[in-house]
Amino acid sequence: MRGVFDIKAVDLRSDTLTLPSGEMREAMASALVGDDVYGEDPTVIRLQEEAAALVGKEDAIFVPSGTMGNQLAILAHTERGDEVLADSQAHIYYYEVGAPAMWAGVSIRPLDGLLAGGGLDVLRNALRPADIHFPATRLVCLENTFNRGSGTVMFPDEMKDIYHFAGSKGLKVHLDGARLFNAAVFLGKDVREFTANCDSVMFCLSKGLGAPVGSMLAGDSGFIARARKYRKALGGGMRQAGVLAAAGLVALKNINRLEEDHRHARVLAKGLSALPVFEIELDRVQTNIVVARVAGGIPASGLVRMLGEKGVKCSAFGPDLVRFVTHLNVGPEDVEYTLKAAGELSVNTPG
Amino acid sequence: MRGVFDIKAVDLRSDTLTLPSGEMREAMASALVGDDVYGEDPTVIRLQEEAAALVGKEDAIFVPSGTMGNQLAILAHTERGDEVLADSQAHIYYYEVGAPAMWAGVSIRPLDGLLAGGGLDVLRNALRPADIHFPATRLVCLENTFNRGSGTVMFPDEMKDIYHFAGSKGLKVHLDGARLFNAAVFLGKDVREFTANCDSVMFCLSKGLGAPVGSMLAGDSGFIARARKYRKALGGGMRQAGVLAAAGLVALKNINRLEEDHRHARVLAKGLSALPVFEIELDRVQTNIVVARVAGGIPASGLVRMLGEKGVKCSAFGPDLVRFVTHLNVGPEDVEYTLKAAGELSVNTPG
Amino acid sequence: MRGVFDIKAVDLRSDTLTLPSGEMREAMASALVGDDVYGEDPTVIRLQEEAAALVGKEDAIFVPSGTMGNQLAILAHTERGDEVLADSQAHIYYYEVGAPAMWAGVSIRPLDGLLAGGGLDVLRNALRPADIHFPATRLVCLENTFNRGSGTVMFPDEMKDIYHFAGSKGLKVHLDGARLFNAAVFLGKDVREFTANCDSVMFCLSKGLGAPVGSMLAGDSGFIARARKYRKALGGGMRQAGVLAAAGLVALKNINRLEEDHRHARVLAKGLSALPVFEIELDRVQTNIVVARVAGGIPASGLVRMLGEKGVKCSAFGPDLVRFVTHLNVGPEDVEYTLKAAGELSVNTPG
Amino acid sequence: MRGVFDIKAVDLRSDTLTLPSGEMREAMASALVGDDVYGEDPTVIRLQEEAAALVGKEDAIFVPSGTMGNQLAILAHTERGDEVLADSQAHIYYYEVGAPAMWAGVSIRPLDGLLAGGGLDVLRNALRPADIHFPATRLVCLENTFNRGSGTVMFPDEMKDIYHFAGSKGLKVHLDGARLFNAAVFLGKDVREFTANCDSVMFCLSKGLGAPVGSMLAGDSGFIARARKYRKALGGGMRQAGVLAAAGLVALKNINRLEEDHRHARVLAKGLSALPVFEIELDRVQTNIVVARVAGGIPASGLVRMLGEKGVKCSAFGPDLVRFVTHLNVGPEDVEYTLKAAGELSVNTPG
Repeated sequence: MRGVFDIKAVDLRSDTLTLPSGEMREAMASALVGDDVYGEDPTVIRLQEEAAALVGKEDAIFVPSGTMGNQLAILAHTERGDEVLADSQAHIYYYEVGAPAMWAGVSIRPLDGLLAGGGLDVLRNALRPADIHFPATRLVCLENTFNRGSGTVMFPDEMKDIYHFAGSKGLKVHLDGARLFNAAVFLGKDVREFTANCDSVMFCLSKGLGAPVGSMLAGDSGFIARARKYRKALGGGMRQAGVLAAAGLVALKNINRLEEDHRHARVLAKGLSALPVFEIELDRVQTNIVVARVAGGIPASGLVRMLGEKGVKCSAFGPDLVRFVTHLNVGPEDVEYTLKAAGELSVNTPG
Repeated sequence: MRGVFDIKAVDLRSDTLTLPSGEMREAMASALVGDDVYGEDPTVIRLQEEAAALVGKEDAIFVPSGTMGNQLAILAHTERGDEVLADSQAHIYYYEVGAPAMWAGVSIRPLDGLLAGGGLDVLRNALRPADIHFPATRLVCLENTFNRGSGTVMFPDEMKDIYHFAGSKGLKVHLDGARLFNAAVFLGKDVREFTANCDSVMFCLSKGLGAPVGSMLAGDSGFIARARKYRKALGGGMRQAGVLAAAGLVALKNINRLEEDHRHARVLAKGLSALPVFEIELDRVQTNIVVARVAGGIPASGLVRMLGEKGVKCSAFGPDLVRFVTHLNVGPEDVEYTLKAAGELSVNTPG
Repeated sequence: MRGVFDIKAVDLRSDTLTLPSGEMREAMASALVGDDVYGEDPTVIRLQEEAAALVGKEDAIFVPSGTMGNQLAILAHTERGDEVLADSQAHIYYYEVGAPAMWAGVSIRPLDGLLAGGGLDVLRNALRPADIHFPATRLVCLENTFNRGSGTVMFPDEMKDIYHFAGSKGLKVHLDGARLFNAAVFLGKDVREFTANCDSVMFCLSKGLGAPVGSMLAGDSGFIARARKYRKALGGGMRQAGVLAAAGLVALKNINRLEEDHRHARVLAKGLSALPVFEIELDRVQTNIVVARVAGGIPASGLVRMLGEKGVKCSAFGPDLVRFVTHLNVGPEDVEYTLKAAGELSVNTPG
Repeated sequence: MRGVFDIKAVDLRSDTLTLPSGEMREAMASALVGDDVYGEDPTVIRLQEEAAALVGKEDAIFVPSGTMGNQLAILAHTERGDEVLADSQAHIYYYEVGAPAMWAGVSIRPLDGLLAGGGLDVLRNALRPADIHFPATRLVCLENTFNRGSGTVMFPDEMKDIYHFAGSKGLKVHLDGARLFNAAVFLGKDVREFTANCDSVMFCLSKGLGAPVGSMLAGDSGFIARARKYRKALGGGMRQAGVLAAAGLVALKNINRLEEDHRHARVLAKGLSALPVFEIELDRVQTNIVVARVAGGIPASGLVRMLGEKGVKCSAFGPDLVRFVTHLNVGPEDVEYTLKAAGELSVNTPG
């Protein structure tokens, strides 16, 4: 019941690597299921209802990945040729294979700083007057927590300003909430304080919550009906999807334990930042992601390899950036081991 | 461990409704898993290897649905603007939501009779000379067994003629083999006798083989690499997909038992055809699908409702056509019950 | 002031070959022009107003080709993924390079017989119930006269039945009227009797009317506004387009002279049908197109070559079909010459 | 033979407003023409040959607009889903209605500074390693002169560095040379010194060269063959296009007189910069475009209106930017008049 790559390693590459717990496997094995394409899978139905209630939306739909959830949101909010605004470092722009152009025929206009403190000002400056040379701007995408921003949190008030302004300009707001519960836990707030400020939200059951497969897309019922049709066309309509939904229902119980991951990340960040080879902005370590700048001109890829040789896996996140992600398969002893391994790196730094 | 809609009913609407067996659930619960987006899920890897070997192709990829498998095949074989040839009743044209135009930007030219005996002659007549007014024809899609053709089987020799001709014209051939094993079992042949005559093949682990979720797409390794990238963009990249793949591996053991479904279908067809209300071409009942024409001017939808009231579910398949599908949750007693229920219908027929 | 290919030849390949008259060239040379992308070309504005009035629509837009006009209609009437119904021999399906899938992301479902007498019955049978597997059907395309139907005319009453039925089902109707004035002249009716029965219409200023370049798309003002934006994106926004529009305004004076082309076509058809090598359905020779079946097993391409050697150009229109089109550069003496040349063909026919 | 909006005005909004000269009108009126869709228009053929030779490419194709030429280049160089790199202020990204996503299904990744001095360094930093999350980067688009960069010139050496680097990474380079001849005239170089450093180039016959309609796309013959097919699908295939091509051939004789426009622009820029209300970087006034920053907190739109009331038309080019473009309908007296009008503006500036 463990992953096969379970060598003595600490795997901090991503929280997508989390392995399903015994309780989840049990739930999958005993799930009541039906054919969800016929709308008859009771476990999927229950998960969709719980998810919608959790984020305060009319309806929700289960999808096999966060990418599909985000792409469905774009498809259901836009017409071909429209323009979508997103941060230049947002997952929906940076990591989704150019899908918005390919499937929806829409252009994403990347905005520097939208998610990094710029917020409403960045959005306001980005709007252009109607002109036959410009596509119609239709949608703003936010991301909370912000992965390439070190997992930082956008506060509900900032989302509210953006949402009100967008609405006044006829723009919809979609929230890529792949790690939305990390934001809620960080602030100790109900997740609905965030989702009240968007038209649609995608959140992942995998990642920190630990389900093996699946994400939820929520919004009003017309939006979800459109997304459902597009999901069928994308090939995301699954049959007895209740086996996955059952794990998803268990995953929803993991929300509060995200605090542990945050604590581990803080310990890790503090420890690493004491080493000469890492520079970390500690105030940006708010949730379960630690992004460290590698000092001394060492390339990130080299540092990843050196740590890997000591059994600690992390990711290059840029030419001189390394990312560490804590998650439910990372305990205090793993953090300790990582710090020990990092401390042993024989790296010549300028200092 | 049973579906929730398990009222006293015989459900012959589709073999997509099959519920996972205890063995499958057990396999899912104990599967070794990893993150398949990182290429690290050992159960997915094993399923992909077994699937590729089974159909005699270099590589294979796991996808959440047959529709995604078919669409990936179109995406990986074509360029935007190309033309794809398919039977006018083929699933890929008839039931996939217009996805080829929407995602791949290709036109399907529907051909009458390609799968209904016309084969090579239909294909040959469909080709047009190169002309600036015509899209480039790039791909031929076959379907075996042929769902809207009552689950009939295209013989390997017919596929071979088409494949050779297509190849001589620079066309690729994709096989929608959602129910390919039904064809192999019907003829008592190795499935590779079919798949030797196509460039790519999709087959379903759900449907008759009984897995809850999943299909395989197989072809040469360059093709699968392209499909893998498109799968990510569609949102079909799943994390610990091994929980589903484990069920898929069990499903592959169900191939030979498809013979039971075929036997049940024949018994059902024979019994129904003895009733005045149904007209059935018995020689077309080759696998697990029975399509009956409703006599007496009764609309198909009405007959579906009347049978439904007696606990037998089937599908309207056209204004006067009804479809019954046998599968692993349908036993001899269910067939018997269905015939009894159908016999009790008080329908005034002309005879 | 004549075309360079003006060797002693009769060119019956297409009415697209018409050369601009002296009056048109004069008009082009003296046109008042401005930048039409700024909406400031007075000749374009005037042509658009005249065209809209002529077909009884709110607004019209000038486009560089009939294909662009048709594609803009599809773009402005549909959303990505929609289904468009058209005759399987319609230009918009048969000759437009698969553009509807490529640009609009829509599927054309080709219907046999829609334009060949089937009309409303064919349309009615083609509609499918709403279903998650089916694209939404959004648009019906008609073509009048019907090029691949030998230039036959759909009567206003038949269009009316289709238009009313379509409207009752929420479908829009677009008319490919590349040769609409030929239909009007044939019936001696005002063109608005036709265009009252569609939501949008494209007609060509080139072809029989003789302008060198250009077509008009007309419809309500919201539709034209959408088309205008898509035209910019396609690259169909031209600067001092008034030089072309000026020729278009002259072309509109050529409507009544289409009767001459029809007369020439009838003479030609009658003469050819008297020869053993041609079979022609004379009642289908209604306008300026003659389609002849080649008897005696001679391939169309061979006959085209043989006539070509005698200085008569025509087109292969299928394996055994040849098309002749009369137009304003074809006089009675050209018809006579063609019949003489055809009569001299030494062809062995079965009779 | 003059435009209708020829009130006593100086129109500096754009060089697209140029009106065709008498010689052009004469050429249009007497052009030898044929059907270019059949490849039989001798004037189009001649223009295409001259254009290809002029820029040193194998082949060229006539298109109705620069936008169509640019979009065809993207279509012919890429596959669906690819990524294209362009300056964030490039016309192909900023002013083409989101067409690359809509038609080609590709994403443009906008790069700050690529055309504004950053060149190779910006490009080098933009490349990402191959990764399943990233689209394949396929094409770099340059623009010379650079419209939103005040018509500045990229030197052949800088293009060469980019072209060699791009080639070494498997990227194609397309040059949006809408105003390429302005660059060549500025440096006194043969245009082929620029076009030797790209795979394809689009240049406009309208704009400074003064043709009413039309642009050329040039590249190797395989590229142009692909572009020709896409042009047909876009609806850019025109019939007797020789009437436009004839004007284009005359336009090519206007290359050297662009020097006049540049001189006028310099005089204008110098004069305006002496007024307190305008701030102009004079070293950026290299060709026929003057971009001035409006001082004193006056919005650009207000200044445009104030000048308009005095009979001088220019364009708002940003919240506080105004653009003036000189062209062949602007003489020294127009520049003088403009400076006089600007000098009379009663604007309170901080100084």
